[in-house]
Amino acid sequence: MTGILNLTNISLPIATVLDEQLEEVSLILERQLASDLSAVNTLCQHIEQYQGKRLRPMLVLLSGLAAGQAPWDGSGLTHKHRVVAAVVELIHLATLVHDDVLDEAQIRRRVVTLNHLRGNETAVMLGDYLISNAFHLCSSIMEPAINLTLGEITNTLCAGELLQLHHRDDYDIDETTYFEIVRRKTASLIGECCRLGAMLSNDDVTVSEAMGRFGTQLGIAFQIQDDLLDITGDENIVGKSLGKDLDAGKLTLPLIRCLAVADESQRAEVVALIAKRDADQLRRRLIACGSVEKTREQATQLVEDAKTELGFLDQGPARELLRSLADAVISRQF
Amino acid sequence: MTGILNLTNISLPIATVLDEQLEEVSLILERQLASDLSAVNTLCQHIEQYQGKRLRPMLVLLSGLAAGQAPWDGSGLTHKHRVVAAVVELIHLATLVHDDVLDEAQIRRRVVTLNHLRGNETAVMLGDYLISNAFHLCSSIMEPAINLTLGEITNTLCAGELLQLHHRDDYDIDETTYFEIVRRKTASLIGECCRLGAMLSNDDVTVSEAMGRFGTQLGIAFQIQDDLLDITGDENIVGKSLGKDLDAGKLTLPLIRCLAVADESQRAEVVALIAKRDADQLRRRLIACGSVEKTREQATQLVEDAKTELGFLDQGPARELLRSLADAVISRQF
Repeated sequence: MTGILNLTNISLPIATVLDEQLEEVSLILERQLASDLSAVNTLCQHIEQYQGKRLRPMLVLLSGLAAGQAPWDGSGLTHKHRVVAAVVELIHLATLVHDDVLDEAQIRRRVVTLNHLRGNETAVMLGDYLISNAFHLCSSIMEPAINLTLGEITNTLCAGELLQLHHRDDYDIDETTYFEIVRRKTASLIGECCRLGAMLSNDDVTVSEAMGRFGTQLGIAFQIQDDLLDITGDENIVGKSLGKDLDAGKLTLPLIRCLAVADESQRAEVVALIAKRDADQLRRRLIACGSVEKTREQATQLVEDAKTELGFLDQGPARELLRSLADAVISRQF
Repeated sequence: MTGILNLTNISLPIATVLDEQLEEVSLILERQLASDLSAVNTLCQHIEQYQGKRLRPMLVLLSGLAAGQAPWDGSGLTHKHRVVAAVVELIHLATLVHDDVLDEAQIRRRVVTLNHLRGNETAVMLGDYLISNAFHLCSSIMEPAINLTLGEITNTLCAGELLQLHHRDDYDIDETTYFEIVRRKTASLIGECCRLGAMLSNDDVTVSEAMGRFGTQLGIAFQIQDDLLDITGDENIVGKSLGKDLDAGKLTLPLIRCLAVADESQRAEVVALIAKRDADQLRRRLIACGSVEKTREQATQLVEDAKTELGFLDQGPARELLRSLADAVISRQF
């Protein structure tokens, strides 16, 4: 199984353990979505192809391994870890399906999006089905505190998306607001993956809180890399429609930076390119003004900061794999 | 506060009790949705105007009162009843917001719909925010079994909507499939309102199961009445865009009946009217062929059947009010 880390290329026992655990997570997810209605199953099978990076379930499992007593094998992981991993992947899949409706995207993970194939109505409703199943699956482990915390996170995530929509085509958006949006819509769930994974393995709150901070910073870096790929990525490698942030009126970090340092006439030119949705010219401009490079540096710094939080964990292969995963977040080309 | 029953017009102590309890439910709902982001609060305030019939919270509370030890005053109701009542109303509001996107509706409860006002993107995301808040609020009472059962119900509800979309513009849809859709998308939640309300007041499973059956039948009748109002209602009284079922390619019960009894040439005429989305001609046709009347009779029978389940409850004012509410489900003009 592939992912943000290609586990089959890593010849360490921990990679095999993680790969096997991820397979079990996929089975839990599939079983959860299985319906007595074939119309529903067909749609879900389409969506299961969207699973690509598996960043969130990987983080739950690896954080659980790294914070646990036996960080070198899978014995420290429980059914609860695997269920939480499936739940966060379901939440993520739901946001992808609804994001594609919002962005009118046509391609995702190299397959045609559901909204493009079956219309927005079906995509909206299938996203709801995925959210509902995420909460239902989460309730099955009878840990009301986890239901409560994940409910809080999804509230935050949706509020972040609403804040982003509120600032659509807002050329005056500043970096503070940008980070506020990203912290909510992306980093909150990624942070919680790490915190929950650790918490389920280790009673020491210092460790799970540190893992929460690790995930939050990693999540911000992840979103910045997404922004960069939308501008500079290769559509064949990224596997989804690019330039979509621009089409949707989302001002991403490189653009916000560029506008912030521009003089009046430069600003007018950039605004005109945005209004025309001229992705090619804008890309050249953002590279030329240095904001692409500067944004890349900032993502790198966030990953470095995140990695210092791993000092709260015992040394071992799981911790090392978390380090590699953190690097992959910004070195990835998809 | 108005609702499917105008409680201020009923001069019984129980009506006052119910009205006060509904006010508390509204406060719980408002507090739950309150955000630190003003952009989110503005949207939620708009949505709170959609609350109209309050059928679902009323059923939770009245079932709780009627199944409890002191069915004549509010002392039998707990915080859990009120939270569950707010949760089901939130789930319902979320479905309204997403349904309006699906149906491209412009008016709801006499106010402009959010999708029309702010675009589909914001409406999709706000619906997600409402679903998320419903689950979060539900988790706050720390009753994992209720989380699990409501998760099951929302899975069923979404699957029902997907099944309906699957049969869009399917002129061969039969009554069995129609009832399968309605049972899932509408009756499942309404049935669960009654079952949960009773269960929270009374350990006797015979009673809560009977209330579940009461609500399920009532829910089917409620949907049939909605179908009828979409065809024969007065837009000024109903307070929302009409003819939307037709526009969305949803074949409702009167139409399915009419097609079922039509001969080949009649069928071709009706199909042509559907394809043209000619609501006026179709209305005349459905009345003329007797299917509107027949559908109305079926809804009446369902309500009568539902009311027999109330025999499992002790006599008292709450039970009487449930009877009135059941009648109101099909006598309503909005």
